[in-house]
Amino acid sequence: MKRVNVNQLENFINQKVLIKGWVSQFRQLKKMSFLVLRERTGYCQIIIPKSVLYESISPESVVEIIGIIKMESQSTYGGIEMVAESINIISHATVLPFPINREEGIPPFNTLNIFRPITLRKEEERCIFKIQSEIIWAYREYLRSQGFTEIQSTKLSSSGLEGGSEMFEVEYFGEKMYLTQSPQFYKQMMVGVYERVFEVGKVYRAEGSNTNKHLCEFVGFEFEMGFIESVEEVMQMEEKIFEYIFNHLNINCMSELQHLGINLKFNPIPRITYSEAISIIRKHTKYEKVGLNTEAEKIISEYIFNETGSEFVFITKYPLSERPFYAMPSIEEGFSETFELLYKGMEITSGGQRIHNYEKLVSSIESKGLNPQNFESYLMAFKYGMPPHGGMGIGLERVIKQMLNLNSAEEASLIPRTRERNIH
Amino acid sequence: MKRVNVNQLENFINQKVLIKGWVSQFRQLKKMSFLVLRERTGYCQIIIPKSVLYESISPESVVEIIGIIKMESQSTYGGIEMVAESINIISHATVLPFPINREEGIPPFNTLNIFRPITLRKEEERCIFKIQSEIIWAYREYLRSQGFTEIQSTKLSSSGLEGGSEMFEVEYFGEKMYLTQSPQFYKQMMVGVYERVFEVGKVYRAEGSNTNKHLCEFVGFEFEMGFIESVEEVMQMEEKIFEYIFNHLNINCMSELQHLGINLKFNPIPRITYSEAISIIRKHTKYEKVGLNTEAEKIISEYIFNETGSEFVFITKYPLSERPFYAMPSIEEGFSETFELLYKGMEITSGGQRIHNYEKLVSSIESKGLNPQNFESYLMAFKYGMPPHGGMGIGLERVIKQMLNLNSAEEASLIPRTRERNIH
Repeated sequence: MKRVNVNQLENFINQKVLIKGWVSQFRQLKKMSFLVLRERTGYCQIIIPKSVLYESISPESVVEIIGIIKMESQSTYGGIEMVAESINIISHATVLPFPINREEGIPPFNTLNIFRPITLRKEEERCIFKIQSEIIWAYREYLRSQGFTEIQSTKLSSSGLEGGSEMFEVEYFGEKMYLTQSPQFYKQMMVGVYERVFEVGKVYRAEGSNTNKHLCEFVGFEFEMGFIESVEEVMQMEEKIFEYIFNHLNINCMSELQHLGINLKFNPIPRITYSEAISIIRKHTKYEKVGLNTEAEKIISEYIFNETGSEFVFITKYPLSERPFYAMPSIEEGFSETFELLYKGMEITSGGQRIHNYEKLVSSIESKGLNPQNFESYLMAFKYGMPPHGGMGIGLERVIKQMLNLNSAEEASLIPRTRERNIH
Repeated sequence: MKRVNVNQLENFINQKVLIKGWVSQFRQLKKMSFLVLRERTGYCQIIIPKSVLYESISPESVVEIIGIIKMESQSTYGGIEMVAESINIISHATVLPFPINREEGIPPFNTLNIFRPITLRKEEERCIFKIQSEIIWAYREYLRSQGFTEIQSTKLSSSGLEGGSEMFEVEYFGEKMYLTQSPQFYKQMMVGVYERVFEVGKVYRAEGSNTNKHLCEFVGFEFEMGFIESVEEVMQMEEKIFEYIFNHLNINCMSELQHLGINLKFNPIPRITYSEAISIIRKHTKYEKVGLNTEAEKIISEYIFNETGSEFVFITKYPLSERPFYAMPSIEEGFSETFELLYKGMEITSGGQRIHNYEKLVSSIESKGLNPQNFESYLMAFKYGMPPHGGMGIGLERVIKQMLNLNSAEEASLIPRTRERNIH
C-alpha cells in the first residue's frame, strides 16, 4: 500500500489509505483512542478503536496507520478524520522532557536550545524555519530576475584585516586564517566579472557583546551591482527585494504567518538623512548623545512609523568617519553615500556606494591609517577597471526576529552560535 | 540617456543608444579603432572613428559609449555593431599581466589563481561560474518541487568527533570548536522536523592529500529524506536531480556549454553492487588490491560507459566496515545499504539509508569503538522517534570538474582553498 500525504486526504473520502508520521497528540478515552498525526504536509486526527490499539503511544513516536477517511465537521484538521483499522509503531519515543505539541506553551529559549533536536519539531519552530527558507528563496528568485548571478565566496580569509579582534582564528596547516566577517571584498571583485552578483552565505563575527541582536554566525544576504548612477539605485533594489519577499510570504506561508499571529503588509520605504535623524531625536526626546545607537534607532523607527505607517526606514548619508574605507564620500564634506535600513527599530542592513577609482581607494585606505600593501589582492580588481557600484548586506536572523516579533536573533537560527551558546 | 544592455541592441537598429562595459579587445587601425565591449548580458563590437577617439584604450578599462546601432553581417556578435559618436572612459585599467580576452589561450591554473580577481573575467571562467550558479539553482528548484525544505545548519561544530585530524580547529572565545565536515547530524535531526530537507553549504576538510579532486573548502549539496522504503528511493531522487540539472543547463546555459565545448546528455544511471564492481575489475584488469580506490573507480566507470553509454554509475552495498556508524546494515551479513555515485570515473556522491532505531544506533556507535555519551546531542533526535530515512551528499566542485572536463576541482572554486592555496 502506498503512503498518502495528509494534505491529499480530501481526495480519499470513504476510502482506505495508509498514512505515516509522528504522534503529535495521544489521548486514551473509554472506548477508543484519539491521535493527532504530524507529517511534512500537515496534521490529521485519527480515531483508534480499542480493538485496534489497547495500549498508549508516547508523543513523537513514529507510526504508520491504515484506516478509512471520513468527513467530520468537528475536526479542526480540514474537516476530515481517519478511523484506524490497523496501526504499526515504527519508532517508540521516550517520554518527552516537556510537551512539544502545538497546544502547549513555549518554554524559555534556553530550554528550547538544550533540547533543540526535538524542540525544533514544535509548530512555532517549524513555522519560523519554513518562513526562513521561503525568504531565502524569494531573495534569490527576485535577484535572478534582475540579472544577478549567485556566487559562492570562500569563508576562509587569509588576512585578518577586515576587523581584527572580532574575527575567529582558524588553524590552517600550521598557518593562521580567519572566518570571513563579510564577503565584501569578493563581491566587489565579482562586479568586475558579472556586474551584478549576490550571495547567501554564512558570516562570522566574534561578538563580544551578548545582546538580543548579535550572533557569532549568521546568514548574510549580500548583493553588489555595477554601473549605478547613485546609491539610490541600491536602496531601490533593496526596497523591491522586501516587497517581493513580503508578497511571496503572503502567498506561500499564509498558514505559518497566521499560526504566529503575523500580518505582513509592505509600504513604500521613507528615506531620511542621518542629519535629519539626529534632528528628529533632538526635537522629540531628551536624547543628547552623538551618533545613532540602538536606542536612537528605536526612536527614529517609532517616529517614522507614526508619521508614515512604514515599519522600515532608510537612513542615508552617514558621516564618512563612521564608515569603512571603501565608502564613497558625498559631495557634502564629511558625509558618505551610505545607508542603513531600520526595521521596527533595528538595523538590518548596511549598504552604500563604493569607491571605484583605484587611486581614490588607495588614499582612502591610507587616510584610515591602514597600509594599502595589505590590500593587494582586493586592490587588484580596481587596478584593472571597475565601474561605479554599490551594494548591501542584510542579516537574515535580524529580519526574521523583527518580522515575527521574536525575542532575539538566536531564535531565528537553527543552531545558534553566540558567546554563550555553542552546543549541538 | 539611459543605458541599454547589449543583448537588447537588435531592438535599436539605426538608433542612438548608450552602452556601458569593459573593453575586452581594442585595436587601432588607420582611420578608426575597433573595440569589443563586454558587459553582463554579452559582447558588442564597436567602430570608433579617429575623430571620436585618437588615443588607445587599455583592455579592461570601463567605458560608456554613445553611438548608432547598425546591422553588420561580418560581426561575430549577433550580426550587429555600433558606430561610436562619443566615448567616456570611466576607469583606466593598468596594462594586464597577460591577455584575458576570449581569443587568447588559458594560462596555467597557478597563474590564473594568483591573478584571480581579474582572471575570473576571462570568458572560460565566467562560463564555469555561471554554470555553477545554474546547477545550484536547479538543485534547489527540483528538491523544492519534491517537498524538501532548505535548511541552514551551523558550520561550527562543538565536537571534533566527526573526523578528528581532518577537521579545522577554530579558536572560539578561549574554547575549541571545529569547522563541520558535513551537515550529516543536522540534516538527520531535521528529518524529525520537516521529513525532507536539503542544504547547499560550505563543507570543510583539512585534506592532507593534494590531489586534483580534494579541496579544503567546498560546496556540499546535501539532502535527507524520511519514510523511505529502501535506499533505492534515495538513488532515484539523486538520479532525477541530475536529469533535472542537465535539462536546466541545456536550456539556460546553452552558450556557456557551447563555449566550453561541452555536450550534455543524460542517460538512466545503471546500478551495480560493490561485489559486482570488484568482479568486473578482477575480470578485466590485473588489478588485485582490495577495495575501490581512485584507479578502480576509473576502470569501473569506463567499463559501464562502454557497456551502457552512461557517464554515471551507482555502486551499491559497500562493506559495512568501510562505512560510518550510522550506515544501515544490509540483510546480507557484512554489507550496508549505502552507495556511491561515480561520474566519468570520479566519486561525486556518497549516500545511503541510515539507522533510525535508537538502540541499534547506540550499539553501532559502540561497535566502532566510539562512546555514545559523546553523541548525546545527535542521539537525542533518535530517542524521540525517527522514521526510516536516507540521504546523500554531492561535492559540487567535483561535479563541475567532471562535467566541464577541468583539470582539477580547484578550477571549479571561485577562491580555492587547498593545502597550497590560501591567497585572496
